[in-house]
Amino acid sequence: MALLLRELGERGLLRELESRGLAGPIGDDVAVLGDGLVVTADALAEDVHFRRGWTGWRDLGYKAAAVNLSDLAAAGAEPTALFVVLSAPADLELAAVLEVYSGLNEPGVPVRGGDTVAAESVSVAVTAVGNSERVPGRGGALPGDVLVVTGPLGAAAAGLWVLERGLTGFEELVAAHRRPPLRLAEGKRLAAVAHAMVDLSDGLVIDAGHIADQSSCAVEIDVELVPKHPRITELTDESLWTRGEDYELLAALTAAAADAMDLPVIGRCLPGSGARLLLGGEPYEARGFEHFSGCGS
Amino acid sequence: MALLLRELGERGLLRELESRGLAGPIGDDVAVLGDGLVVTADALAEDVHFRRGWTGWRDLGYKAAAVNLSDLAAAGAEPTALFVVLSAPADLELAAVLEVYSGLNEPGVPVRGGDTVAAESVSVAVTAVGNSERVPGRGGALPGDVLVVTGPLGAAAAGLWVLERGLTGFEELVAAHRRPPLRLAEGKRLAAVAHAMVDLSDGLVIDAGHIADQSSCAVEIDVELVPKHPRITELTDESLWTRGEDYELLAALTAAAADAMDLPVIGRCLPGSGARLLLGGEPYEARGFEHFSGCGS
Repeated sequence: MALLLRELGERGLLRELESRGLAGPIGDDVAVLGDGLVVTADALAEDVHFRRGWTGWRDLGYKAAAVNLSDLAAAGAEPTALFVVLSAPADLELAAVLEVYSGLNEPGVPVRGGDTVAAESVSVAVTAVGNSERVPGRGGALPGDVLVVTGPLGAAAAGLWVLERGLTGFEELVAAHRRPPLRLAEGKRLAAVAHAMVDLSDGLVIDAGHIADQSSCAVEIDVELVPKHPRITELTDESLWTRGEDYELLAALTAAAADAMDLPVIGRCLPGSGARLLLGGEPYEARGFEHFSGCGS
Repeated sequence: MALLLRELGERGLLRELESRGLAGPIGDDVAVLGDGLVVTADALAEDVHFRRGWTGWRDLGYKAAAVNLSDLAAAGAEPTALFVVLSAPADLELAAVLEVYSGLNEPGVPVRGGDTVAAESVSVAVTAVGNSERVPGRGGALPGDVLVVTGPLGAAAAGLWVLERGLTGFEELVAAHRRPPLRLAEGKRLAAVAHAMVDLSDGLVIDAGHIADQSSCAVEIDVELVPKHPRITELTDESLWTRGEDYELLAALTAAAADAMDLPVIGRCLPGSGARLLLGGEPYEARGFEHFSGCGS
């Protein structure tokens, strides 16, 4: 019987493409094209990554830029240009599209080209181009390294959780869902010394797992050490800070380098394989996010 | 009343975005990012640019790569990488997606990254990156220049015309619709001497109009001089060779340079404005292609 994308999941599809040599690393990784040129591409699609009622058009544009700039930040890059393919229904208002592009331009990286196509739903596919003096990648973490994170986790997932339930009084969390942080300055600073770096998009364990897998080491993260947004403790879902969409950076570096960075240490690399969360030394269960198999698609 | 994309058309939307400084030239133009780096982005969407029954999955991938490589060819560039955002329904088969990526890889430019997202219909958004020693652009044509074209026109539009009518026995034309030519070598050769160059995607008059507008000159094309695919004369629609989708290159250069190129001269630049077709010295009417307002969307 024919295998469907739904059964395979997004990561399963990417593995199929990569194992056949049909695509380089797809997803959050950047491609390094030589001479410090780095390129990444990420798309936001209606009813998969956003809903019209929950994300304004300007926020949508901002977020589409920000999630790509986050990948460049994880590569220690200075962004130079965005290329945007907007898919939109023919009955969408011009005003909405202008808001999307206003949001795309807000982080200050110019939209230098792209395309627009008619489609049944809205999606914003962005390719971001930048330059980096040193791309840490994901494969250089060493046993003995510590892991640092650039900010508190959980606000974005909590904001989505709040929207799904129609709660009010959590504007700060909803704003975090709509407008990821830009960590370009932190990314450049970390890239100079980090052995490995990723941005936290899919979820803490999944993203830390990329470092573990590609560095052939184990990654342990202490739940107590992870900085969590203060307001998520008001909500009932305790694992919100593991859900991803934070777009903070996670870097592996020596303890001495971490001290100089003044960022919270949340875990360590050691011999072995896989990434895991520990609470009081015991395994702690959490989950990430997968396309094609769930979440409104 | 709110203005809708349908009323504005694709080019109207692009004008709105560009005039507000919200986007650089979108569409077929490339962005020149310095140090010879050129980037372009173009998408193919289901029921706008292709139909599943008329274009196989592998052909779709090939064409998505080829239309972008065509923009790089018009910039005299050597392509280095493609970035692909595939939108696809969750019930699409893996085998179909593998065919799309096989087609994308066929021209020999590696897919170095991208993203996949769940959507109701299939679209393939490609960003192509390359290097060029000299980008002619569209604005340098001079009165006295002649126009050359790299191949016969009309086969692709005729192929679509044939598919729309369910005719058989025109496989050569259908193949031209499904698989545009790659003119990278010609593009590099022309870029060394051309004053202006475009690829013929939207239609001969529209694309020649880009040179006329941006070079502040008039462009005249002699209908008798345009090389037309021999088989289109078997079909009843005489204007098929003006419809676009040929992905041949149109370049403005001196008559002496054109002689050395051994390519057919089809027209000239002269003082004035606008692009027009002439048949026996008289104006000849033709039309191009516009998204959001027509054609299956």
